[in-house]
Amino acid sequence: MSHGVSPLAPTSYPAMPVIDGVAMATAEAGIKYKNRTDVLLMVFDRPASVAGVFTRSKCPSAPVDFCRANLPHGVARAVVVNSGNANAFTGRKGVEATTKTARAAAATIGAKESEVFLASTGVIGEPLNADKIEAVMADLASRVTGDFWVEAAKAIMTTDTYPKVATRTAKIGAVTVTINGIAKGAGMIAPDMATMLSFVVTDADIAPSALQTLLARGVGPSFNSVTVDSDTSTSDTLLLFATGAAAARGQARIENADAADVAAFALALNDLLKDLAKQVARDGEGARKMLEVTVTGADSDESAKRIALSIANSPLVKTAVAGEDANWGRVVMAVGKAGEPADRDRLAIWFGDVRVAVEGARDPDYSEEAASTVMKKQDIPVRVDLGLGSGSATVWTCDLTKEYVEINGDYRS
Amino acid sequence: MSHGVSPLAPTSYPAMPVIDGVAMATAEAGIKYKNRTDVLLMVFDRPASVAGVFTRSKCPSAPVDFCRANLPHGVARAVVVNSGNANAFTGRKGVEATTKTARAAAATIGAKESEVFLASTGVIGEPLNADKIEAVMADLASRVTGDFWVEAAKAIMTTDTYPKVATRTAKIGAVTVTINGIAKGAGMIAPDMATMLSFVVTDADIAPSALQTLLARGVGPSFNSVTVDSDTSTSDTLLLFATGAAAARGQARIENADAADVAAFALALNDLLKDLAKQVARDGEGARKMLEVTVTGADSDESAKRIALSIANSPLVKTAVAGEDANWGRVVMAVGKAGEPADRDRLAIWFGDVRVAVEGARDPDYSEEAASTVMKKQDIPVRVDLGLGSGSATVWTCDLTKEYVEINGDYRS
Repeated sequence: MSHGVSPLAPTSYPAMPVIDGVAMATAEAGIKYKNRTDVLLMVFDRPASVAGVFTRSKCPSAPVDFCRANLPHGVARAVVVNSGNANAFTGRKGVEATTKTARAAAATIGAKESEVFLASTGVIGEPLNADKIEAVMADLASRVTGDFWVEAAKAIMTTDTYPKVATRTAKIGAVTVTINGIAKGAGMIAPDMATMLSFVVTDADIAPSALQTLLARGVGPSFNSVTVDSDTSTSDTLLLFATGAAAARGQARIENADAADVAAFALALNDLLKDLAKQVARDGEGARKMLEVTVTGADSDESAKRIALSIANSPLVKTAVAGEDANWGRVVMAVGKAGEPADRDRLAIWFGDVRVAVEGARDPDYSEEAASTVMKKQDIPVRVDLGLGSGSATVWTCDLTKEYVEINGDYRS
Repeated sequence: MSHGVSPLAPTSYPAMPVIDGVAMATAEAGIKYKNRTDVLLMVFDRPASVAGVFTRSKCPSAPVDFCRANLPHGVARAVVVNSGNANAFTGRKGVEATTKTARAAAATIGAKESEVFLASTGVIGEPLNADKIEAVMADLASRVTGDFWVEAAKAIMTTDTYPKVATRTAKIGAVTVTINGIAKGAGMIAPDMATMLSFVVTDADIAPSALQTLLARGVGPSFNSVTVDSDTSTSDTLLLFATGAAAARGQARIENADAADVAAFALALNDLLKDLAKQVARDGEGARKMLEVTVTGADSDESAKRIALSIANSPLVKTAVAGEDANWGRVVMAVGKAGEPADRDRLAIWFGDVRVAVEGARDPDYSEEAASTVMKKQDIPVRVDLGLGSGSATVWTCDLTKEYVEINGDYRS
């Protein structure tokens, strides 16, 4: 597949600062791809707090099961991620592969297996040969470095056309802490989770239970508000680690997610999660345009989000966007099929600043030309006001193009 | 759009018999299309019993509102259908257009407006000029004939590539009755309803309430079991008429849907509805392959159907089928995302007769070659056994191709 970099890719990457307490390295294990890195090892000097959210699929991958089992301990020393094979629907062999990988990582860095976290992404149903990961483990551990975020993001890519990184800082008390994150996505992207994989690390000192609360709150308006194709992966994993290195600079440990001290951190975390999530949507397979769907005036925020996702997941809306067609009739259709409270005769719809429909019919002042100008842009805001209440939500998606079909009709070959 | 006739089109059409009590004609009203028929008038000699099911969209079209209001009377004298404009999201003008059309039909044939049923299909949000329909009404009424089913099916097509007709006979007591049906579909096709438009007529003598029960029962495993793109139209309408002409041949009127006498008729009706529904799926926009998804071993029939629809609506499954890729991992994904009870380690999956997965992993005897042979066919059966209970369901869909994107990215232009 050489579809080139998404036209929606960022034009520049942030300088990713070193975060005290974490180091990483990548290797070419040859799991599926040739001549590119496909394994990432992330090591924490000292036990880090860990929080995680995972796919709600009833058929999760072996690494998801593995992480869920380790998460209650709340402590991480290492993360091993591979691309090229999802180790999903691999039965007993899949469990053996996670055990072998975790054991190799634990032995190499001198940690417990319960302190290792794993993620795999790629094809489903093919046995993962963990020997290939084990074979590069010692070398990886010998090369870990703190200044390697973009390379780490590259190693976990599958059909992604660009690496996804983000960084933020925030103050906890008088101490400035940093948050770095990487993500990969591209296809099989839908809420609960839409990650697919994302790893976020901060040097803040935060207890695991508080960290978990902060992550759970941040994921709703970010990763759980992007969709590429409504297909939820078996492998979606978002892990957040707090190395606690900032304690040495005087940061008082956060034990409670509602502490006043952690409010600024929470905002920065949420902002970073949204940044990464939008980068995932912008790299949707075959994407040429980014659609920001905002629903206002709904009965509730939950209702607004369901309607927004109904619009964002509609193949007819997404193909209309691909065709630069201001086809607001399809937006009406998607509102109608959501099953949520809606009154046809109160609906108003905007593409960008152009109101195309009002009170259940085409806007009398509607200008096809003005709407078309909006549709020709790369970023297209669509707003629907239901005129019922004060519920609102925003979600992000990309258009549905022939390239999406091409990429996914030819993925395994 | 000249994408040619779907490769899945029927190779022959049944001879559609005349049904006593109904006659029809078509005309070129020039609503949107040029040089093709776009209005259908169906007239019943004497008041026919009528039953109907409609879209569950919260933003239904004006004709759907109109039919819903007339349905409780249970009596029909005429049906007017147009293609090219859906008269949906057209506000007050839309209501005026339905009133004008119904009034013209009622006046022309000497019936009440409450005995007229309407349907419109085509673009949403454009005002429908009912003057154009009114202008051809007298001519239509003067030309109605009983032997016109295929022509009627052609007049209601939008992006359909072939007309959809079906016919069955059944005995009610000693009297043979006939059922004829026409349908149109192609895009914006998903259950509740998946019609989009279908009109079925029998000469049987059946009371409206019994007819409604029979229709409601038949629609579940037929029109509500096909999906093209998961997008539910604002206009879906399925109307069933019973002219009662068979009473003259000695058929005792059916007052109760559970009467023993009507069992054979119910089977024939259900079979006809399934035939029409599958024709709709086979003409899915851009379709090259037909997918029959059967789920067995589910907790309940309802659960099986939700999982089957999750598979049939998955863009990743549908693009894999387009690519002739036996990518059963995506089937696992779609089972997992359905949210229904499923145990990964009990799943078994077949493409045709080839079992590709069993007990939560690739079948040890799996042959990529054998699976590929199945995928190269035009009709592809996929079966998933969940190993939990005895619930089962079958749904039909088509593949997702570049042509779907092309057709829908350029529909209004």
